[in-house]
Amino acid sequence: MTIYKQALKGIMTKEMIHVSKIEKVSQKEILKGISKGRVVIMKRVGFNPIGIGYPLKTKINVNLGTSSSKINIDEEFKKVEIAQKYGADTISDLSMGGDIDSIRSKISKLTTLPLTTVPIYQSVVEAKSVLNVSEDIIFRVLEKHLKDGISSIVIHAGFTLDDLNSMKGKRIMKMVSKGGSLTASIMKSTNRENPFLANFVYILELIKDYDVVLSLGNAMRSGCIHDKIDEFQISEIKSNKKLAKLANKHGIQVILESLGGHINAKDIIKWVKRHKKMTNNRPLFVSGPLPVDIGTGHDHISAAVGGAFASGFGADYICAITPAEHLSLPSLEDIKNGLIACKIAAHVGDSMKYGLNHLFNDDLNLAKNRFLKNWKKQFEYIIDPEEAIKRHNLNGDNDICSMCGNHCALSLSKKIL
Amino acid sequence: MTIYKQALKGIMTKEMIHVSKIEKVSQKEILKGISKGRVVIMKRVGFNPIGIGYPLKTKINVNLGTSSSKINIDEEFKKVEIAQKYGADTISDLSMGGDIDSIRSKISKLTTLPLTTVPIYQSVVEAKSVLNVSEDIIFRVLEKHLKDGISSIVIHAGFTLDDLNSMKGKRIMKMVSKGGSLTASIMKSTNRENPFLANFVYILELIKDYDVVLSLGNAMRSGCIHDKIDEFQISEIKSNKKLAKLANKHGIQVILESLGGHINAKDIIKWVKRHKKMTNNRPLFVSGPLPVDIGTGHDHISAAVGGAFASGFGADYICAITPAEHLSLPSLEDIKNGLIACKIAAHVGDSMKYGLNHLFNDDLNLAKNRFLKNWKKQFEYIIDPEEAIKRHNLNGDNDICSMCGNHCALSLSKKIL
Repeated sequence: MTIYKQALKGIMTKEMIHVSKIEKVSQKEILKGISKGRVVIMKRVGFNPIGIGYPLKTKINVNLGTSSSKINIDEEFKKVEIAQKYGADTISDLSMGGDIDSIRSKISKLTTLPLTTVPIYQSVVEAKSVLNVSEDIIFRVLEKHLKDGISSIVIHAGFTLDDLNSMKGKRIMKMVSKGGSLTASIMKSTNRENPFLANFVYILELIKDYDVVLSLGNAMRSGCIHDKIDEFQISEIKSNKKLAKLANKHGIQVILESLGGHINAKDIIKWVKRHKKMTNNRPLFVSGPLPVDIGTGHDHISAAVGGAFASGFGADYICAITPAEHLSLPSLEDIKNGLIACKIAAHVGDSMKYGLNHLFNDDLNLAKNRFLKNWKKQFEYIIDPEEAIKRHNLNGDNDICSMCGNHCALSLSKKIL
Repeated sequence: MTIYKQALKGIMTKEMIHVSKIEKVSQKEILKGISKGRVVIMKRVGFNPIGIGYPLKTKINVNLGTSSSKINIDEEFKKVEIAQKYGADTISDLSMGGDIDSIRSKISKLTTLPLTTVPIYQSVVEAKSVLNVSEDIIFRVLEKHLKDGISSIVIHAGFTLDDLNSMKGKRIMKMVSKGGSLTASIMKSTNRENPFLANFVYILELIKDYDVVLSLGNAMRSGCIHDKIDEFQISEIKSNKKLAKLANKHGIQVILESLGGHINAKDIIKWVKRHKKMTNNRPLFVSGPLPVDIGTGHDHISAAVGGAFASGFGADYICAITPAEHLSLPSLEDIKNGLIACKIAAHVGDSMKYGLNHLFNDDLNLAKNRFLKNWKKQFEYIIDPEEAIKRHNLNGDNDICSMCGNHCALSLSKKIL
């Protein structure tokens, strides 16, 4: 029986108990959250599961994997280690270059984190052209991933041929979702309906046996802030909402990917709130969103701002964006910086959703030790101690910070207050 | 006659006309804004003035200058160039090491931007100890800065000995404002009242002749998110509000520094809105704020998030925070990265305050060229083209991005939609 079905029956599984303990949320609330579709649990055999949704800590995903034009497998493997080291909650392997099966297999051995894939990617690679991507290929790839023990799959099932046909003359950036545009290309070039939509129930039956989480992809996200939240996005939200209900009926847990891409900040606030309301508080996964376009080269910062707004107003799960976004496949350093920016965003989001609860004990301990100028202890509580230590060591003397030298406000405060 | 007095009389000065043109805000509105204390104009002889306040574009300040323990004058001069190159609106020279007078003089020659100083810094250096900082020294330093043609000065006049005495046992981080804690040290060690408060009218008379903007400093900002907005902050806000009114009476324009430091995101929103309301929409200058503490080493990102929240809900003027914050004096690279993060924050803020108006034409042009994959043209519209070009060049081939290689969503979109 799947986790969702067990939750419906009131059966407390070991995954639920683990999540309850880690999150300091009662078992009852976890059970209820899952049965209502508000919480999902991603799991992988042999490792700790993680929970996503309200009222749990905001989670972070890191994308990695080869592309058709850049295949440096060892670097991708190192990214896995960096993602885990700096506190990613899940990893998505988006490989489209090299021996995709063996890359996925190796990644799954390198990490204890839940693993997500987007089967359309490998389907296109195996078919060599979008023209040749048959449903058989898609299902074969999908089953391969399921058998390999992934935790979650992404499909872009929330749009139709009609949607694509009516996009003519609209939107500056058209479609910017890779999975979405690959799916759309198959549809348009073969004049077939969305294969994930047409075979949705079949796919549910396939994945049910593996109890993976179904992530309903955000093909229609906007690629620039001027594209706004339009009819295509709204239509996809409504379709995915219906598909989520159907998936639940088949015993499958669902995450809704939505409101990713580029969205002005006011609309992030408005639409995240609306999305949570429209979907009865289902887990919302956002990629970015970027509230400005012109930060290219520093998009991890734009994404941190957008991610903080999104998670602060209700998003449950954020995808890290690196400084290489829009420019190239990220380096190891980019993965680290994107993840840390995202952690800051998620932490801000949690402060807004839950107040300064136990999740903010590190901030408290940092502050206490900062006031005491206990540098070593202070660094134990921060997200990236290595960076801070490296910078602090530049000062030479261990008790001084070259920012203020002798005129340190903390030293003065300690003396006089 | 000062700009403020002229605005009161309905006289349109060349500074107002310039700001009106640059900001695309009517001359009438600029005049009214200044006369109501909502807008201030910072100027420096020979250079273009800048306007700060509603409904103008959010402005950015960059702090630089030597400290007592790190005096690398040439590096500070290069920071001035970087600040101007990457779009700072104002520069604050906070030097406390080396020949402060000649550093300030050279900085003023290196930039066309308005220049701010905090005279208490040099006063403490010249007096050698806080015990010796007489009012004479303070006024002498202040007059020196005025005669050198600075645009704005910061004083921390909004707290009393009583406030300091009642801080005992309260606040984890006590005072973290350098100017504030220096002023407090003078007060506590000599048992005198706040020299800026005690001599406030005399200071107004001094600065009136030079028509500099008075920035009422934020001595009471909180140093960690757990310190919250407390009685000391609120008391300072109320005091500065009164002092601002008095300064206006003397014909002087005022900026209120407030809500800087570390503040949880919900309180940023709540207090920025409240502050603007409490002070009849006076220009609000925030330093940060940082909505989380544990991002040390990446505080420019925390500050970008906090600055976006602050400016989006009403702050008019943001101080850039570098990745070196809390650790050391920033490097050139740190100044650049802090400024760019702040520009992203201010841009998000403007989108919330004003919608996607003319300030977002660069985002629009970037998007149009991004869709066309016109890389060269695309880079003309971004904040940091050098970084983007450097990263794009890593791809080798000019038409490809190694993120997606052959499977580019934009290429697919262009083909099928």
